[in-house]
Amino acid sequence: MNHTPMIGRHAIRNGALIASSEATVAVTSRAVQYGFSTYESLRVVEGRAVHLDDHLERLASSCEGIGLVHPFTSDQIRAWVADLIASDSIVEATLRVQLYGGEEPLLFITATPILTYPPFFYTDGVGVTTYRGERLIPSCKTGNLLLNYMALADAQRQGCFEALLVDRHGQILEGTRSNFFAFRDGSLYTAADEQVLLGITREQVLRACHHLGIEVIFEAVQVEELFSGYYDELFISATSMAAMPIRSVDSMSFISTYERTLAIKDLVRSWEMGER
Amino acid sequence: MNHTPMIGRHAIRNGALIASSEATVAVTSRAVQYGFSTYESLRVVEGRAVHLDDHLERLASSCEGIGLVHPFTSDQIRAWVADLIASDSIVEATLRVQLYGGEEPLLFITATPILTYPPFFYTDGVGVTTYRGERLIPSCKTGNLLLNYMALADAQRQGCFEALLVDRHGQILEGTRSNFFAFRDGSLYTAADEQVLLGITREQVLRACHHLGIEVIFEAVQVEELFSGYYDELFISATSMAAMPIRSVDSMSFISTYERTLAIKDLVRSWEMGER
Repeated sequence: MNHTPMIGRHAIRNGALIASSEATVAVTSRAVQYGFSTYESLRVVEGRAVHLDDHLERLASSCEGIGLVHPFTSDQIRAWVADLIASDSIVEATLRVQLYGGEEPLLFITATPILTYPPFFYTDGVGVTTYRGERLIPSCKTGNLLLNYMALADAQRQGCFEALLVDRHGQILEGTRSNFFAFRDGSLYTAADEQVLLGITREQVLRACHHLGIEVIFEAVQVEELFSGYYDELFISATSMAAMPIRSVDSMSFISTYERTLAIKDLVRSWEMGER
Repeated sequence: MNHTPMIGRHAIRNGALIASSEATVAVTSRAVQYGFSTYESLRVVEGRAVHLDDHLERLASSCEGIGLVHPFTSDQIRAWVADLIASDSIVEATLRVQLYGGEEPLLFITATPILTYPPFFYTDGVGVTTYRGERLIPSCKTGNLLLNYMALADAQRQGCFEALLVDRHGQILEGTRSNFFAFRDGSLYTAADEQVLLGITREQVLRACHHLGIEVIFEAVQVEELFSGYYDELFISATSMAAMPIRSVDSMSFISTYERTLAIKDLVRSWEMGER
């Protein structure tokens, strides 16, 4: 199975430190079979979990959104994250907090290698595709991800880095694992909060725009208008990417120097380190 | 975790007989995290897997529908089902064939207690609710089931047995784990093939209607028309239920003697036994 090897020797299950090989669930578990689960994926940089409070807040609201009731408090989870980082002396990693609902909720924290991208991804930009489909509950980060999986697989078959999800009205809402932004006449367009997953990095991008004096218009980009050339610089944002410039959408090129995107990316990354 | 205890001491993983406690998957597996999986749930009655060929055919088409490539042939899976039944001398059970995709596909076969319902469910009928929502790829049986989970949980909170999924056009397409049928002027209405999961038992219901001289019209029931009293006998079908009469939909009663429904149910069950 497509299985990310864990770093370190441990994982957390319901607060207990376990061997990472024991971070498993029964295939007969209803919560696993139905994807009745929520999760967060975050970066550990210099031994610190970046934007942990924001991630825990979103985890709680995802659980509320799908009616996943569990006994774990944000303070507990925060302490367990610290336990895992300390026990395996983790300096850099992707941490995943994975919560399964049902009668006996199970919360796992696992550490896998941190996602980084070659520098030329940022200088040259990445290719993306468009894919028709709508997520079930856009604002919640849940196990209901088949659309995201299929859209990304389709993009990768075409040699692309990400797929942009286009809804029934022709609106580009978000990527399969990212939020989407596009410049038009000097303003930055992105879908409204209620239409997308409220990315932690999306928040930081909006904060960066404020600092850089870039006006943000919360209006989803129409795919036809994108292909009609109304937009001149595009990027996606995610925890692992910060802000990643887009070179092409399907067969249409958007090559530029990506100055605004890279300025936003540098600010977002600088805040990650500056948080302490 | 809400976890059905397995019967028997074994399960199958990729053809190998394993201890049922070993039927687990890593929480770091992408296929598990994304619900990139397909499955079938079938009955073992008198030591025989009922309609096994039909289930294996549907499993193959579910995999094709979501692009899940795997090396397992229907002949292999059929043999593994026989292995599990023999090794644990299973007479009666629910068998689940669970297939996870990705780079290293994993196929599990597990046996859990057979689902049966008290006789009064059939004589009195069951209460169901309506729930707005559309499944992602209706014809495929996949791990993308959060809508089904939430709709059923909502029904159960209201003391009901099942939820009927209503699409954006007000059409009742199917239940969360069942197909839906309704009589109107002596004809039986049900959603068209391409709109729903093609239930194995749905096929048997249609066959029973043919035998009983009941005309079937493949047209989804409009929820407004249902509540306007155009329909006089309703039921749902599933492997575990055969045909289960519906006593009420939300607050509207459909109490009757359910003669047609029970005649269909008896025929469907009789064929299960007569298959040999």
